[in-house]
Amino acid sequence: MPAVVECVPNFSEGRRKEVVDRIVYSIQSVPGIKILDVEMDPDHNRSVVTFTGNRENVQEGAFRGARAASELIDLNKHKGQHPRMGALDVLPFIPISGVTVEDCVQIANKVGARIAKELKIPVYLYESAARRPERTNLENVRRGEFEGLREAVLSDETRYPDYGPRMLHPTAGAVAVGARMPLIAFNVNLKSSDVKIAKEIAKKIRASSGGLPKVKALGFALEARGMVQVSMNLTDYTVTPISEVFEAIVREAKERNVEIAESEIIGLIPLDAVCDLAAKFLKISRFGSSQVLERRIWG
Amino acid sequence: MPAVVECVPNFSEGRRKEVVDRIVYSIQSVPGIKILDVEMDPDHNRSVVTFTGNRENVQEGAFRGARAASELIDLNKHKGQHPRMGALDVLPFIPISGVTVEDCVQIANKVGARIAKELKIPVYLYESAARRPERTNLENVRRGEFEGLREAVLSDETRYPDYGPRMLHPTAGAVAVGARMPLIAFNVNLKSSDVKIAKEIAKKIRASSGGLPKVKALGFALEARGMVQVSMNLTDYTVTPISEVFEAIVREAKERNVEIAESEIIGLIPLDAVCDLAAKFLKISRFGSSQVLERRIWG
Repeated sequence: MPAVVECVPNFSEGRRKEVVDRIVYSIQSVPGIKILDVEMDPDHNRSVVTFTGNRENVQEGAFRGARAASELIDLNKHKGQHPRMGALDVLPFIPISGVTVEDCVQIANKVGARIAKELKIPVYLYESAARRPERTNLENVRRGEFEGLREAVLSDETRYPDYGPRMLHPTAGAVAVGARMPLIAFNVNLKSSDVKIAKEIAKKIRASSGGLPKVKALGFALEARGMVQVSMNLTDYTVTPISEVFEAIVREAKERNVEIAESEIIGLIPLDAVCDLAAKFLKISRFGSSQVLERRIWG
Repeated sequence: MPAVVECVPNFSEGRRKEVVDRIVYSIQSVPGIKILDVEMDPDHNRSVVTFTGNRENVQEGAFRGARAASELIDLNKHKGQHPRMGALDVLPFIPISGVTVEDCVQIANKVGARIAKELKIPVYLYESAARRPERTNLENVRRGEFEGLREAVLSDETRYPDYGPRMLHPTAGAVAVGARMPLIAFNVNLKSSDVKIAKEIAKKIRASSGGLPKVKALGFALEARGMVQVSMNLTDYTVTPISEVFEAIVREAKERNVEIAESEIIGLIPLDAVCDLAAKFLKISRFGSSQVLERRIWG
């Protein structure tokens, strides 16, 4: 099975289609790269490109995207609602199959060092690639945005980049390069109209209040459907599998005499996470995604 | 998503590697065909090739394999333990994604008609492609093998082929062309040493004794492990999903005060069947294989 690494660069341009097209074209020009999605957001004036490759070509694709953005986007002229500090603003690498998040940390370091050296753009390592603990949180890296960070690096040592020149690039700013696991957006709807129950359960299970690690959760009312929802982001399904999250919610709901209506997976989910759920259902101890027929065909 | 059809031709040659290589090469010579597996069995003197393609190229690959086999294998000289009636003996088409078993029946008809016309080999349609009810069972088609069928068609109208000349090809014999769903080999192990319990449950759930449709089941003792096993072949997981089979066994076991130890999936399983299990675990009403990240990359 070939390694698959996903890369989701965010560019500070969401209005000029010809600019976004040229950036995407530069990424796509690397053999073996597959563009999965391009989303332009005119309000945020920001575009999110999703592409995949192997360990090597994903680095080349990311670098070419960074270079094209630095040539085409001037942050001094950029306005939009979303916080940003660079023409290429964030560059996360995500392990999909045959690679680990540690491999993606290495990739982030290689690409970050190359962007710093060849494009003279300062690089901040974030999330799993962070070298300073506070930089695991992207918000801390981007605080003050382009204009604020440009000032901060003049005096504040804690804001110095991990690679490249200390001073921001005059037009392309700085870039946050990182590694993280794929996110899974997972909701469980409860047969209740009492939003307090969803909020209580969310608080009980989320990592930030001492619940399950790598789980973010909030409680909402779904008024049109007369239900309430525990809405979650699972930031590392290998640490806390979806099945464990679901079973914890079933337990908490039962204690409150509430039934589960149904669950939802929003967007995409990695094959390994799906296989894990299937194995749990059937009580299979050894079952891997290599047994999935399509994987033999496509992988 | 492109359509994926699997084809698993069985050839009556399992000893001369150079012959099998030439057959495989002829299939592989069609652009877009992917060879997943080649298994040579010298005792059976038979080879099983597994390949995939789309609706069109899978037909061309199958035909080229049939032609190569008819040029390279002489059944008059063939000896082996496995029953056989042709150089290319059986040719099943199996829907994997984006196609139905009905599509595969059409494909079987097109390829069968072409083999009959261009190679002058009689073709028998079997399983889902069968035109006579008794031919859904391959054993009935192949009864008497090459030597017996050669005699039978001289007088017995019920043994006439569906396509092509009535008389067998002098060296290549006849071929059974069919369509079927992918098989899933699924076992459930029970915490009991009483093989009667496994046999009872197998009888209760298998189609042949009035149980679940498209389920074949037998009970075995797993002596080394001190357990018993319900061993199954699911011949159409879209008619009876794996989850339903598993839940039926859990119910039957509970009635007999026996616990489930674990399950096993032997070999490959289609992605849609895995997604169905995941959705059942989480009570998701809308979840499809199109939400699997890798499918976006590979499909």
